[in-house]
Amino acid sequence: MTSAPARSPQQRKQDTLHRLEHDVDAWVATAAEGGAAPWLVPLSFVWDGATFLVATPATSPTGRNLSSTGVTRLGIGPTDDVVMVEGTAVAVPPAELPEEDAEIFAGKTGFDPRRLTAPYLYFRILPRRIQAWRAAGEFEGRELMGDGQWLVGD
Amino acid sequence: MTSAPARSPQQRKQDTLHRLEHDVDAWVATAAEGGAAPWLVPLSFVWDGATFLVATPATSPTGRNLSSTGVTRLGIGPTDDVVMVEGTAVAVPPAELPEEDAEIFAGKTGFDPRRLTAPYLYFRILPRRIQAWRAAGEFEGRELMGDGQWLVGD
Repeated sequence: MTSAPARSPQQRKQDTLHRLEHDVDAWVATAAEGGAAPWLVPLSFVWDGATFLVATPATSPTGRNLSSTGVTRLGIGPTDDVVMVEGTAVAVPPAELPEEDAEIFAGKTGFDPRRLTAPYLYFRILPRRIQAWRAAGEFEGRELMGDGQWLVGD
Repeated sequence: MTSAPARSPQQRKQDTLHRLEHDVDAWVATAAEGGAAPWLVPLSFVWDGATFLVATPATSPTGRNLSSTGVTRLGIGPTDDVVMVEGTAVAVPPAELPEEDAEIFAGKTGFDPRRLTAPYLYFRILPRRIQAWRAAGEFEGRELMGDGQWLVGD
C-alpha cells in the first residue's frame, strides 16, 4: 500500500468543502424504522454551505426511510478519498421548496422533480458529523465536524 | 444529461462480473437491529464467483450490525456505473477461514486481519439480489439476480 503523508485538518476541511461543492452524487444510506434492513442508493445532491438537498420518490425505500426516521449517513467521493456524513433529514414537498433552490437543484443535477409525474420529495439534510480520510494512515484526525459544529477552523 | 444506449442484459452481467472481480472496495450499508440508524463505510472485498468476503473489527458498527442482523446492501462502482447488491452475511472468525482464502484476501486488499492486534471478523456475504445501471435510461432491466439466482444468462 502506498502511504501519502496525512493531510492537516485544515487541508482535509478544504478538500471536503471542495468535494461538497463540486461532487454531484452521494451514496445515501438509510434504515427502515424499527427494522434491521439497510438501504443504499446514489442520489444527486446540492450543498448550500450548510445543508445537503436531495430528492427521491416519496414512496421509494429511501424516501420512506428518511420520512420516518429522519436519519441518514452519506458517503461522498471514491472509496479511497471519502467524506462521511451523518445527518438529520427533513422532508420538503416540492411546493414548499423555494423556487431558487429548485432551480439550482435542477441545474446541478440535471433532473427536476417538479416536472416529474411521480410524486417526489426533497429532503434537506443537516450534517451533524463529518469525517474525511484517504487511507488507513488518515484514520486519526478524521473528525471534522461533531454535534453539528466544525471542529476545524478554515 | 447524456444518454448512452442501454446495455443488453448480457452486457450488464458481463460488466458486473468484471467489476466484482477487479474492484477493490464496496460501500457497505448496514443497520442496527431494531433501530433506525443506518451505517455506511467503504470496505475492501474479494469476490470468489459466488460470495463476497469482507473484514472489519468485530466491535465496529458494521461488525456489530452484520453479526446481529446478517443483512447488508453493497454499492460497488462509481455513482454513475453502479452495481447494487443485497446480501446475507455470516461471520467467519479468522481462525475458521481457510488459509487460502485469507491469503487471497490479504493479497488483493493489502491488509491481513490475521496479523492485526484488534479482533477482526471476516464476513462472507451471499448475494440475493444484484442490480446494475449507469444512468436513468438503464433503470429498466437493472435486475440481474433475484432470490439468489442469476436472471440473465452468460
